[in-house]
Amino acid sequence: MKEELASFYQIFTTTKEAIERFMDMLDPVIEHAKDDHERLYYHHIYEEEEQRLSRLDVLIPLISRFQTEQNGNAFSPSNNTFNRLLQELNLEKFGLHNFIEHVDLALFAFTDEERQTLLKQLRVDAYEGYQYVKEKLAKINKRFDHDYEDPHAHHDEKHDHLAAVPDASTQKPQAKKRKGFTVGSLIQ
Amino acid sequence: MKEELASFYQIFTTTKEAIERFMDMLDPVIEHAKDDHERLYYHHIYEEEEQRLSRLDVLIPLISRFQTEQNGNAFSPSNNTFNRLLQELNLEKFGLHNFIEHVDLALFAFTDEERQTLLKQLRVDAYEGYQYVKEKLAKINKRFDHDYEDPHAHHDEKHDHLAAVPDASTQKPQAKKRKGFTVGSLIQ
Repeated sequence: MKEELASFYQIFTTTKEAIERFMDMLDPVIEHAKDDHERLYYHHIYEEEEQRLSRLDVLIPLISRFQTEQNGNAFSPSNNTFNRLLQELNLEKFGLHNFIEHVDLALFAFTDEERQTLLKQLRVDAYEGYQYVKEKLAKINKRFDHDYEDPHAHHDEKHDHLAAVPDASTQKPQAKKRKGFTVGSLIQ
Repeated sequence: MKEELASFYQIFTTTKEAIERFMDMLDPVIEHAKDDHERLYYHHIYEEEEQRLSRLDVLIPLISRFQTEQNGNAFSPSNNTFNRLLQELNLEKFGLHNFIEHVDLALFAFTDEERQTLLKQLRVDAYEGYQYVKEKLAKINKRFDHDYEDPHAHHDEKHDHLAAVPDASTQKPQAKKRKGFTVGSLIQ
């Protein structure tokens, strides 16, 4: 568990910085929005990331606390702080997932080279972090038989459409399609 | 607390039905999306609501459990299940907030009378529920000195721009504006 905690700490610290860079990018877009619809759209994404940032301010110290925990019994579902850690980690798995989608939506909209470059950097880290957290949590959730039920397990199994990076330049209108993505559907 | 719990139960049961109606509305929109960008946009909102739906499947029975709780000592921060309840309620306050914004974004996009009518109905309930939950939780969080820190307190104080319902028909491009909303900024 200590090895996973070290990686979780790294991933969530990295994503915290990524949120801040992403919010800085959204700031002028909100300010210069062409109408209320566009402003609400970016403001909404901004607020969701702001909520996530505040949750990470709780999660990151909680990870640290268990990194230095010497008592092996603390890593047990009977310890409520450990349960809290697992709940928060499971929640922030979706935080990472949703962040990747926010970045992907931005990749469609912000087509200048500077923002494309930064967004793609942020996306590489977030995608790698998400894959790691998803894989490790699946094992951890099995190991500790706590009362957490993954609210989105079927997503990870069937709908993980995040592998492909959107490419606005190849964006073409498409014929009627099934709901849901398959790997590759975004780069057709 | 029992009175608030009865209202919370009602609000979150209502919003659960509202999510399902909203997802039903998004379903064909995703299926018939004109391109990958539009598809990702609605699919992303769909998934966020799906995540919320699954969290409500945990929260609603937890509320029920405390509605029938006879032991007054259970309503204490020293009871970890009660702490969990408070955490989940605080999280779902933002769930309601984000749902209102999803509905508002849909109000800008789906301008036919049928969907406008349904969206406005869903919005009235969600807005009323959000106001109630926000007000009561502020008091409850003060009463029970648990370790929860509202990740978004400044939002409620300074940025609660949700009072106004978007009206796509009056939507006009606007000049440069400050980030953030004031009450009324959406109905200029």
